[in-house]
Amino acid sequence: MLRNILIIGAGKSTSYLLDYFFEKAEQEQLQLTIADVNTDTIPVKFKQHPNFEVVCLDIFNTPDRQKLIQKAAIVISMLPASLHMNVAKDCIAFSKHLVTASYVSDEIQGLDQQAKDKGLVFMNEIGLDPGVDHMSAIKIINKIKEKGGKLLLFESSTGGLVAPESDTNLWNYKFTWNPRNVVVAGQGGTAKFIQEGTYKYIPYHKLFRRTEFISIEGYGKFEIYANRDSLKYREAYGLSNVLTLYRGTIRRVGFSKAWNMFVQLGLTDDSYTIENSEGMSYREFVNHFLPYSPTDSVELKLRYYLKIDQDDVMWEKLLELNLFDANKKITLKNATPAQILQKILEDSWTLADTDKDMIVMYHKFGYELKGEKKQIDSHMVVIGENRTHTAMAKTVGLPVAIATLLILNKKITTAGVQIPLHKEVYEPILDELTNYGVVFKEIEVPYLGYNPESVAG
Amino acid sequence: MLRNILIIGAGKSTSYLLDYFFEKAEQEQLQLTIADVNTDTIPVKFKQHPNFEVVCLDIFNTPDRQKLIQKAAIVISMLPASLHMNVAKDCIAFSKHLVTASYVSDEIQGLDQQAKDKGLVFMNEIGLDPGVDHMSAIKIINKIKEKGGKLLLFESSTGGLVAPESDTNLWNYKFTWNPRNVVVAGQGGTAKFIQEGTYKYIPYHKLFRRTEFISIEGYGKFEIYANRDSLKYREAYGLSNVLTLYRGTIRRVGFSKAWNMFVQLGLTDDSYTIENSEGMSYREFVNHFLPYSPTDSVELKLRYYLKIDQDDVMWEKLLELNLFDANKKITLKNATPAQILQKILEDSWTLADTDKDMIVMYHKFGYELKGEKKQIDSHMVVIGENRTHTAMAKTVGLPVAIATLLILNKKITTAGVQIPLHKEVYEPILDELTNYGVVFKEIEVPYLGYNPESVAG
Repeated sequence: MLRNILIIGAGKSTSYLLDYFFEKAEQEQLQLTIADVNTDTIPVKFKQHPNFEVVCLDIFNTPDRQKLIQKAAIVISMLPASLHMNVAKDCIAFSKHLVTASYVSDEIQGLDQQAKDKGLVFMNEIGLDPGVDHMSAIKIINKIKEKGGKLLLFESSTGGLVAPESDTNLWNYKFTWNPRNVVVAGQGGTAKFIQEGTYKYIPYHKLFRRTEFISIEGYGKFEIYANRDSLKYREAYGLSNVLTLYRGTIRRVGFSKAWNMFVQLGLTDDSYTIENSEGMSYREFVNHFLPYSPTDSVELKLRYYLKIDQDDVMWEKLLELNLFDANKKITLKNATPAQILQKILEDSWTLADTDKDMIVMYHKFGYELKGEKKQIDSHMVVIGENRTHTAMAKTVGLPVAIATLLILNKKITTAGVQIPLHKEVYEPILDELTNYGVVFKEIEVPYLGYNPESVAG
Repeated sequence: MLRNILIIGAGKSTSYLLDYFFEKAEQEQLQLTIADVNTDTIPVKFKQHPNFEVVCLDIFNTPDRQKLIQKAAIVISMLPASLHMNVAKDCIAFSKHLVTASYVSDEIQGLDQQAKDKGLVFMNEIGLDPGVDHMSAIKIINKIKEKGGKLLLFESSTGGLVAPESDTNLWNYKFTWNPRNVVVAGQGGTAKFIQEGTYKYIPYHKLFRRTEFISIEGYGKFEIYANRDSLKYREAYGLSNVLTLYRGTIRRVGFSKAWNMFVQLGLTDDSYTIENSEGMSYREFVNHFLPYSPTDSVELKLRYYLKIDQDDVMWEKLLELNLFDANKKITLKNATPAQILQKILEDSWTLADTDKDMIVMYHKFGYELKGEKKQIDSHMVVIGENRTHTAMAKTVGLPVAIATLLILNKKITTAGVQIPLHKEVYEPILDELTNYGVVFKEIEVPYLGYNPESVAG
């Protein structure tokens, strides 16, 4: 008897996820149903495989959706986070396990008791970030605690970047995931974190000027800007008393300083629309954010406004994006500045066919053991194969796939709405990920903290 | 038969309003009812005057409120804007005219047809700003149009400042009105205006760095930062085709550059609360917005962060506010940064008993007449008498009082929800205001525009 796995949503993050099941289908006696509103982009090898079925599904068609869910032993939802609830309710109704890579919403959390009552595993946040970050961090946190260590510091950062061999622009950046998330990153609230016991707040307009730096052997130097809420998992990770707690996003050095030019100008604003944006030139767009002058050029006004020296590479970065081009036109109607900026950046930052992406994750764990302060740094670098088999798709999709099979095989049994912080979850998944090159390298370093000498101030 | 005027709300802006009626009561055969939840602060001269009645009123007590409104011939609401609706509905029900100094809300606008049907004047925005600004601007706009001129430019700015003789701090500023409005000024949206036919957008974090300057004979130089929506009255003023449209707030030169330090740090943020703010020192508060350092002082970190030279007066401005004082404590519980900043500023910027305030209003009208470009500048400066008889109370309260009497005497008769843009309103009010020293000085200047030579770009 084949076990049916229903995968709803087969977008760009599912290449490795599907391949994983392709590889395991016979041996594990799996029947895979891939359901998407658009099945054209699903590779033909799945359509031809006897254990696979590809189905066209409109997620809002309740009878069709429920029919598929009833047939399944477990459901994976790779839909946008806002659509999970449609699937989750059916999973409760028909007693099916559920796996998603998305953040636990309040709505999903509300199903916890029902999932527990029915013995269902509702596994969430089991992609890359959130996902691999949780698992790799909690593993070391637990190891330190088991040795009797007391955590002092936890910093965790992730970045979706372009691989060094495909790094061909001055920004050292290309879009490897949802461009919109990059353009509006950091908006919607002040960044908060804790450094040496003191709360720190960074307003959006300073976020990209308060970066930290890391170096990774073989990959060089990176910079990190703070995420909006570093304190989110304080309790879940058991770090209530930690002195330093910081979560960030990794970029190549220099990106944030240059991105800050867009922030300062107001180009990342998503809260209002520009009148008559359609047909406007890139140059006119930029000029909306500069003082009027009958004589000065857009270029000089911008340089003066942002205090950019003429020989500063910051300037070259703007030129590279054709920001002052009077012939390039915006095709969006009544768009927000952020939407327009995204389109301009997509001209330059879209991955070419042969480009590879890169995922970098970096954790720092500071702790005290027998009166001695110590630190473990742990990092992961994954390079993509090509534009479909990206490092992003691998690190998001494989944990989802592995978790699904573990639940199906009753290796993961704790019921309820959860994120991967239980040992029965993270240990086998992290182990299996190493077979696919998703490997963390741990190094012991001197305790660097922010205040190794405990100076008051 | 005395005519009854009901004044609801007798706060700090009503000193001149009440005095106006005090002076006119016998001659105009007025019976004044002053209703407030707290009648203690109402001067005894009103309580003793035979034509005045002072009543304690809880605005939410509908029978009491309706009884007073039924007795009145006209109602003035000086309540906070959000409470007008309680009064306005009763005015419709009992067929009473209504006067307020507040912006027309959608709710109030919704009463327009009912007011018209009953022949009621619902006059709003008849204080200073909005109020005197409308009247003084539309008067000149209409004059230019009547001569056959075509408006090219309209800029209008107002500031509530401290009078030169009471200007005793480095910021050249004291709170003369609601301090909260000053602290959160410019928040909640990008500033928009039009310069020479081009829309211009200034994000909040740049608002205080894009100031304009004006000089007023006898009063020196001032600066102006843009209001959030300069385009609000474009149609109402009949300026749909104007090339430049700008509304701003007036400060003494240097204020905005210094205020920008608070914006950059994040101290004006009103969107989240600081944990454990109660008992925190001013110094600790500031330190929350600066990077951690085990060795560097809050002072040096701030100077470095904001790039303030040690001999820059900006630095002295911060010291003057005791911002780095470790002994001064915040008494607010879980307050937002903006609330805390307001308290810190109130230590230094509260008007002393003998201090006088000053209102400055400045309009520029650019127009073309018979092929020639011309400009009229019109400005008003009013200095307060003391802490109760402020220039603010005068310029807000007198237009309200004068309009009320004009409605009562059937000089203003146009029914409906309105703002003072009709000639029957602004002409007699502006005339009468001159008797009280609220005088505009008009000067013809060369057309300054932004692009007098019509250079493209």
